[in-house]
Amino acid sequence: MINIKEDERLNKLNHSCAHLMAQAVKHLYPEAKFWVGPVIEEGFYYDIDLGEEKIKEEDLERISKEMKKIVKDGKRIVRHEISKDEALEMFKDDPYKIDLISRMDEKDTVISCYSQGDFTDLCRGPHVETVKECKYFKLLKFSGAYFKGDSNNQMLQRIYGICFDTEEDLNKHLQELEDAKNRDHRKIGKDLGIYMMDDLIGKGLPMYLPNGFILWNELENYIRNKEIKRGYKHVQTPPLGNVELYKTSGHWEHYKDSMFPKMEVEGEEFVLRPMNCPHHMVIYGNDIHSYRDLPLRIAEIARDCRFEASGALKGIERVRTFCQNDSHIFCTLEQVESEFKGVVDLILEVYKELGINNYRFELSLRDKEDTVKYHPDDEMWDKAETMLRQVLNDIGVEYVEKIGEAAFYGPKLDVQVKPAVGNEITLSTCQLDFCLPAKFNLNYIDKNGEKQTPVVLHRAVFGSIDRFIAYYLEETKGALPVWMSPVQVNILPVNNKYHEEYAKEVYNKLIEENIRVELDNRDEKVGYRMRESVIRKIPYALILGQKEVDEKTISYRKYGSEETITISQEEFINLINKEMRK
Amino acid sequence: MINIKEDERLNKLNHSCAHLMAQAVKHLYPEAKFWVGPVIEEGFYYDIDLGEEKIKEEDLERISKEMKKIVKDGKRIVRHEISKDEALEMFKDDPYKIDLISRMDEKDTVISCYSQGDFTDLCRGPHVETVKECKYFKLLKFSGAYFKGDSNNQMLQRIYGICFDTEEDLNKHLQELEDAKNRDHRKIGKDLGIYMMDDLIGKGLPMYLPNGFILWNELENYIRNKEIKRGYKHVQTPPLGNVELYKTSGHWEHYKDSMFPKMEVEGEEFVLRPMNCPHHMVIYGNDIHSYRDLPLRIAEIARDCRFEASGALKGIERVRTFCQNDSHIFCTLEQVESEFKGVVDLILEVYKELGINNYRFELSLRDKEDTVKYHPDDEMWDKAETMLRQVLNDIGVEYVEKIGEAAFYGPKLDVQVKPAVGNEITLSTCQLDFCLPAKFNLNYIDKNGEKQTPVVLHRAVFGSIDRFIAYYLEETKGALPVWMSPVQVNILPVNNKYHEEYAKEVYNKLIEENIRVELDNRDEKVGYRMRESVIRKIPYALILGQKEVDEKTISYRKYGSEETITISQEEFINLINKEMRK
Repeated sequence: MINIKEDERLNKLNHSCAHLMAQAVKHLYPEAKFWVGPVIEEGFYYDIDLGEEKIKEEDLERISKEMKKIVKDGKRIVRHEISKDEALEMFKDDPYKIDLISRMDEKDTVISCYSQGDFTDLCRGPHVETVKECKYFKLLKFSGAYFKGDSNNQMLQRIYGICFDTEEDLNKHLQELEDAKNRDHRKIGKDLGIYMMDDLIGKGLPMYLPNGFILWNELENYIRNKEIKRGYKHVQTPPLGNVELYKTSGHWEHYKDSMFPKMEVEGEEFVLRPMNCPHHMVIYGNDIHSYRDLPLRIAEIARDCRFEASGALKGIERVRTFCQNDSHIFCTLEQVESEFKGVVDLILEVYKELGINNYRFELSLRDKEDTVKYHPDDEMWDKAETMLRQVLNDIGVEYVEKIGEAAFYGPKLDVQVKPAVGNEITLSTCQLDFCLPAKFNLNYIDKNGEKQTPVVLHRAVFGSIDRFIAYYLEETKGALPVWMSPVQVNILPVNNKYHEEYAKEVYNKLIEENIRVELDNRDEKVGYRMRESVIRKIPYALILGQKEVDEKTISYRKYGSEETITISQEEFINLINKEMRK
Repeated sequence: MINIKEDERLNKLNHSCAHLMAQAVKHLYPEAKFWVGPVIEEGFYYDIDLGEEKIKEEDLERISKEMKKIVKDGKRIVRHEISKDEALEMFKDDPYKIDLISRMDEKDTVISCYSQGDFTDLCRGPHVETVKECKYFKLLKFSGAYFKGDSNNQMLQRIYGICFDTEEDLNKHLQELEDAKNRDHRKIGKDLGIYMMDDLIGKGLPMYLPNGFILWNELENYIRNKEIKRGYKHVQTPPLGNVELYKTSGHWEHYKDSMFPKMEVEGEEFVLRPMNCPHHMVIYGNDIHSYRDLPLRIAEIARDCRFEASGALKGIERVRTFCQNDSHIFCTLEQVESEFKGVVDLILEVYKELGINNYRFELSLRDKEDTVKYHPDDEMWDKAETMLRQVLNDIGVEYVEKIGEAAFYGPKLDVQVKPAVGNEITLSTCQLDFCLPAKFNLNYIDKNGEKQTPVVLHRAVFGSIDRFIAYYLEETKGALPVWMSPVQVNILPVNNKYHEEYAKEVYNKLIEENIRVELDNRDEKVGYRMRESVIRKIPYALILGQKEVDEKTISYRKYGSEETITISQEEFINLINKEMRK
């Protein structure tokens, strides 16, 4: 979807439309006072003080109507320049504008205003020529927003909108928004019974419902089995640790603000872990290691907890607790290249099998000038960065280099994808780390009997299982592959009276084959039950009527197809089994 | 193992032996002051103030020698009775005894002392006749112990011992102790690489190592698949919740002391959950339910966290975080009987398959007189208790009724087992609950369209996976069934030079069959590697020499057997596969 903020023309247009909306609000609510009205990626909004009034759905309609009236009137948008003192005088009745003006630099002697008919707003501009240009707009939604984002301040009314140059562009965009809403994992997640949230449990703490857990478990087994085949060793560690652990790792100093508060018990201080690297470091340190034992790939579907501001939470994409598909690969510097290649291979294999095509590789490197942020070992950095680049070139994937985006502890590769709504997210990652092992005094004995510090690769293929489910539900619009589907087959007897017995026979046969099957024998027309099956995106619907009973066959319709195909029971079981597990 | 405290004769004998030890200590450390020296289940101990001195291993030997000298001397043990004032005078140099005496009831005008030779101790008695009777003792261990158990007080030296009437009894007991130590899951867990603990992670927070996680995962899949077959629906919920959740459930009021402290984030209060019932209540409440949907069996391998005093922690049997094999069955009162039966069936099926024979059923009922503790619905209690009893009688299991041991919310069945060391633990449980659903306003619509409150059965088969692993390692002495074993087959080429190639061929074949196999091709004699294989309790060791290479056969030795059997590769694969999964 287009980013309004980054398109020069649309940025200006939407900015003007924000003024237009403010003017209409002022007409309808003469007491209204205005805070800020910026352009954002998704259009614009304006934060408005309406006293005790709260915007309701029907108000958007009234405001839109008034905006259209003003557009028709067609006033020009005129820029004035005034002094700071004049501005303070002009807006003296508006505490919000006074707040803005008084915080302007003393040297900004000239302040600009824009007027259109009876409405003037303080604004840097630029704006379009006339309100007529703002004809193709849509007010999208509203919400409460605290003044300056501080919950101790007054709650303002925020109205969101968007504006285009043509009706066609607007309609196209609204359709895209509608599509995005329909494939938003928060909607699909609810429709398919994947997860629920409840404030009594707590914000950002998802609960996976039976259907969601089946999906989760399939994904967990899928990735774990792949990892086992590649020599990963899985462990299970607790979601909390002693504060000293995070002081040792450095997280306490650098990451504390993203952590839940500590808990003191019997003089010991515990904290929910934001990541599980320190736990895996301690596991490595529990044994003596020889160079012959390396690489050692410790893996875990690991529960982590991070403090995210409630405003940043988003379905199961951004939560306060999640399970990373994590691994720490301990290896020698010489092994980094092949281990890194192994990780990229695994990521690409998984993407291919799961049909994920729409992603970008980002290789984050250090900024050589920034000697404060980056671990000062030029030789090691150069070697590592060259290795990573080499692997990506050898494999032949496209990637973008981001200078200065590396973590302080080493370069990294991120795989970026775009969710239905909002900013890009990182799906997979592989990060080199030259620092953490030393902090835990980890070592291995090299060929010469000397102690050496291992390098660590932090890597995640699914990122977190939670986030991956969010992304994958959006990517597939909820139409999951058979092996991941919570319900794989839905059996619909055409007429319960005559066909239910046979339906039960088929049901039992499929159950025996460990196929997840439901029998919908409700007293509803088969067409109605069929439609529900489609809404639930069940991969196979079996329609069993007299013909099927007589011939002992199965007629099925595959999700997304209108065709009904009749085959023998055995053929159907073979068909499903082929799709059961990659 | 015998409980010394509960055996009248041994109680007296051990009490006298504690005095004997104190006398010997006094001889060796003239400045020693004595706090208390009670008899415990495992024998006796004495807490002694040695000033700056700390007891070391070799001191136990010295003290024992001195004790034997006193025994040989054979003094009689004589009781005196003195007044409180006389006692205060007699022990005026001993602050610990003064502390004891001054806290005695004013009405206890007569205080008893026991003397033997040059040693007198304040004591209620009774004691044996002469120190000669204490001949067969053993000092077992020592530790530091804070005066009155308060870490602000001085650290005293605690010495543990035990005493029997005959050398034979003593030796038998010491052998039992040795056996218990060897089958203690803390030892086996370390030997087999099952789990580790580290104070940097935190006390009571186990980390499952690769071998441990394989075992964990096999158990988790085993029980989950059994549950799926019985219609359980699995969910996954987070290990924390809003404090309001626990206020709603009542845990905040009644269980707070066993919980970790709360964490405040953005004005929301979170707490690590001690149990997951409230989460499952909220999941039930997320949907409308008809009587036709019941019973609804919500299940989860659920992470819980409880505050346990560090002194109470014990390996993975008693920890501060663990995963319950939990389920909540929501049903009508009429369904309680069949659901309860289903749970008992499942428990017995699992025990049978896993070879668990040594357990006791306890049926905990209410005390009818105790109207304060128990939910006051006599009819419901009577009905429920009768149902549970009926089911147990029908199934024909033996059980003990415990009046007044029911939870306040309903009667329960516990299955008790004895670990290698320490008190009985509860392995499985099934608890009826008439209260919790009402607290969450849960309901279903009955046949008449009326709202009814469901009953809940809380049940756990494995208790927690952690505790089950602890118990099962002890029960099997670490010799796990093939399907649970982290390493199932260990391949030992007799001579690497000639037999490694064939060993690798067999290795690859077994890997293809998803058998967990290791190839021990170290430059060590095959006998040495064989012994290591036995120590690691690997179920099958393959000894591959020239004969096997020539004939393409496999010679194996099963753990616990001395016999070597030679069969074809195919026969061996069939043999293993038969043992792979129950």
